[in-house]
Amino acid sequence: MKAHTATLSIATRGQGTREITGEVARVVHDSGVETGTVTVFVQHTSASLVIYENADPSARTDLHAFFARLCPEDEDYFTHTTEGPDDMPSHLRMVLTRTSEVVPITRGRMQLGTWQGIFLFEHRRAPHRRTVVVTVLGA
Amino acid sequence: MKAHTATLSIATRGQGTREITGEVARVVHDSGVETGTVTVFVQHTSASLVIYENADPSARTDLHAFFARLCPEDEDYFTHTTEGPDDMPSHLRMVLTRTSEVVPITRGRMQLGTWQGIFLFEHRRAPHRRTVVVTVLGA
Amino acid sequence: MKAHTATLSIATRGQGTREITGEVARVVHDSGVETGTVTVFVQHTSASLVIYENADPSARTDLHAFFARLCPEDEDYFTHTTEGPDDMPSHLRMVLTRTSEVVPITRGRMQLGTWQGIFLFEHRRAPHRRTVVVTVLGA
Repeated sequence: MKAHTATLSIATRGQGTREITGEVARVVHDSGVETGTVTVFVQHTSASLVIYENADPSARTDLHAFFARLCPEDEDYFTHTTEGPDDMPSHLRMVLTRTSEVVPITRGRMQLGTWQGIFLFEHRRAPHRRTVVVTVLGA
Repeated sequence: MKAHTATLSIATRGQGTREITGEVARVVHDSGVETGTVTVFVQHTSASLVIYENADPSARTDLHAFFARLCPEDEDYFTHTTEGPDDMPSHLRMVLTRTSEVVPITRGRMQLGTWQGIFLFEHRRAPHRRTVVVTVLGA
Repeated sequence: MKAHTATLSIATRGQGTREITGEVARVVHDSGVETGTVTVFVQHTSASLVIYENADPSARTDLHAFFARLCPEDEDYFTHTTEGPDDMPSHLRMVLTRTSEVVPITRGRMQLGTWQGIFLFEHRRAPHRRTVVVTVLGA
């Protein structure tokens, strides 16, 4: 049994999803684990993770539009406003998606489905550098 | 320490939740793991997982109705429409629920609460066969 | 490799978030694991987990207000009403947040970001005692 960890630093270009499947797959490969799990964890409260369809970009366009409507800026009831109008919606969009995702590993590879990719979901308007911790456990 | 994995093929009957607690429990039993975790992972972007109340079916009826309202079909802003009107809502309902769930194992058994069951949540109208990967890690 | 588990009993004061980072950190410390993961699992269907900003309480005030609006009581379509008006919204708020969270461990410590805390999210109006299972895996 092995426990292997690596930290990724991912640059975002402001609001939207950025695929990080390749970066995570590299850590899985480096770990030498054949059977186990990889945990992907984002160390932020205004960015999150989703495993989402990675074939047709229109699915991501609509995802972004959905969250812009579900968690809009400038709600009358917001009290947490000192960090800008995009801050509180960022926390809400993060809560509705994931801080961690866990993907099984078999025969040394992540068992993602055909259309699944791992995406870092940036919720702030400005570009950020985000830290993602990847931990591989298994044999 | 052991790492044990199995793949389940689950038939759905179209939109709705189907309990898979028994199928997952069987894999946990087969693994021989006494203390650890089981990771349940669905390899699709239009089906997902929830751990939900499994006693009174009315709680599931209302769950389905809630998501039908929160992520309706035929939104004006949808651009991802080539796979049918139920496709984009499927992706959104998946994003708001889970691709993976992790359940602790103690004394060889999943530590689910009294009213908790593991459910596969089918978001497409048509019946599908869904692949669920189950990975048990522990001692 | 080690597999270490502990059960926490957390008292809530009714609807709202209660930070449990300290309680989870103690279990991680007790496990002696240096590299691995900790899985936090809530054994209930009307309480859940979020990893959320733990610096400014106003971010939590707005989180509570958001979910009160997104999943209100007394929806016309609710059929699951025998356990009170706050029961069905509790299940929905739970489904939209997490039953389990997985946090990486490096050098014997949880790798939470600067502003991240682990919170138990109570969705029922009345105070409850909630059971949280914590499982540490690693080397």
